[in-house]
Amino acid sequence: METFQVKTKKLKDIVDLTPKLNNMIEEKDFQNGLCHVFLTHTTAALTTGEIGEGTEEDLLEVAEKIIPQIQFRHAHDPSHAWSHMAGSLVGASLTLPVMNGELRLGTWQSVLLVELDGPRERQIVVGLAPVI
Amino acid sequence: METFQVKTKKLKDIVDLTPKLNNMIEEKDFQNGLCHVFLTHTTAALTTGEIGEGTEEDLLEVAEKIIPQIQFRHAHDPSHAWSHMAGSLVGASLTLPVMNGELRLGTWQSVLLVELDGPRERQIVVGLAPVI
Amino acid sequence: METFQVKTKKLKDIVDLTPKLNNMIEEKDFQNGLCHVFLTHTTAALTTGEIGEGTEEDLLEVAEKIIPQIQFRHAHDPSHAWSHMAGSLVGASLTLPVMNGELRLGTWQSVLLVELDGPRERQIVVGLAPVI
Repeated sequence: METFQVKTKKLKDIVDLTPKLNNMIEEKDFQNGLCHVFLTHTTAALTTGEIGEGTEEDLLEVAEKIIPQIQFRHAHDPSHAWSHMAGSLVGASLTLPVMNGELRLGTWQSVLLVELDGPRERQIVVGLAPVI
Repeated sequence: METFQVKTKKLKDIVDLTPKLNNMIEEKDFQNGLCHVFLTHTTAALTTGEIGEGTEEDLLEVAEKIIPQIQFRHAHDPSHAWSHMAGSLVGASLTLPVMNGELRLGTWQSVLLVELDGPRERQIVVGLAPVI
Repeated sequence: METFQVKTKKLKDIVDLTPKLNNMIEEKDFQNGLCHVFLTHTTAALTTGEIGEGTEEDLLEVAEKIIPQIQFRHAHDPSHAWSHMAGSLVGASLTLPVMNGELRLGTWQSVLLVELDGPRERQIVVGLAPVI
């Protein structure tokens, strides 16, 4: 298990984790198996999606607007109550296939850290699991 | 693979599975790797999130209100059609990192069973997977 | 790691992957462990849910209507911008328990490929991971 940090730069931000994950896979000389990625936070999320052509900004706007405007009970900081909801909805855990020494993603697919309450330093735990 | 049951207490409920999972990890003396948790149901879900300060009630209200009011075809029991939708959206599968003999979660992060059609007895399957 | 293709038949479609996955598990004589399923696309998703009684049509309508009507920046094809959002929200990665040589799902639970921008040929990567 390995841990690394990512500094997000804005209140809402998307960071492409694909290059960093591929570097870790290469360093370990891991050829085939599963790469598990976990975010130890509740106001950000991990998912896969397209990068570029405005898709990141679309996703960040959707992540906020999709949460219904309820009377939030979370009193600690009501302005970011929605970010807890979006974090739990999108999720903090992601498992990805590794083939021939790199992540086996689609042509337009990247691994995205979705920051919903930044800028912050976020911690990510990675584990590489064998397959039969 | 191991299975355990959780009794939910209300129509909509959140149960923190973290202590139970950490007990299982300790009993197996599992030090480092992945803990996979799966819910064998379609009207409840698993996710990670904060506990306390009203966040659970916020999440349960959001889980219902986020589902658009369509003319549901699911005729078996239309009153819980939304709970199938929320279950599929949030998901029934969760993989978590284990480090030094316990779940490696964030400070404010818990493993949540989200009951959307209770009270019911829910079944959870756990598998502990090695990493390289 | 193994790859297979699924042809979806409509613009929005749901394909039950359960029989295909159980066949692969049987062919490998894999008895207990984890089955990881990954979709190498960004305008479709993987989840678990009920099949039949109109639930698939409900889920497809909800997947579209749940996305807020923002002014999408994604200019490549604005008509399917929502499908990128729904894909990232529901997710492309799923890990499932295997017990006694088959997927350990609930009675009403199936593994669903959710097509949001079809009809297309979709590629799915499967890995079988051991547990302790």
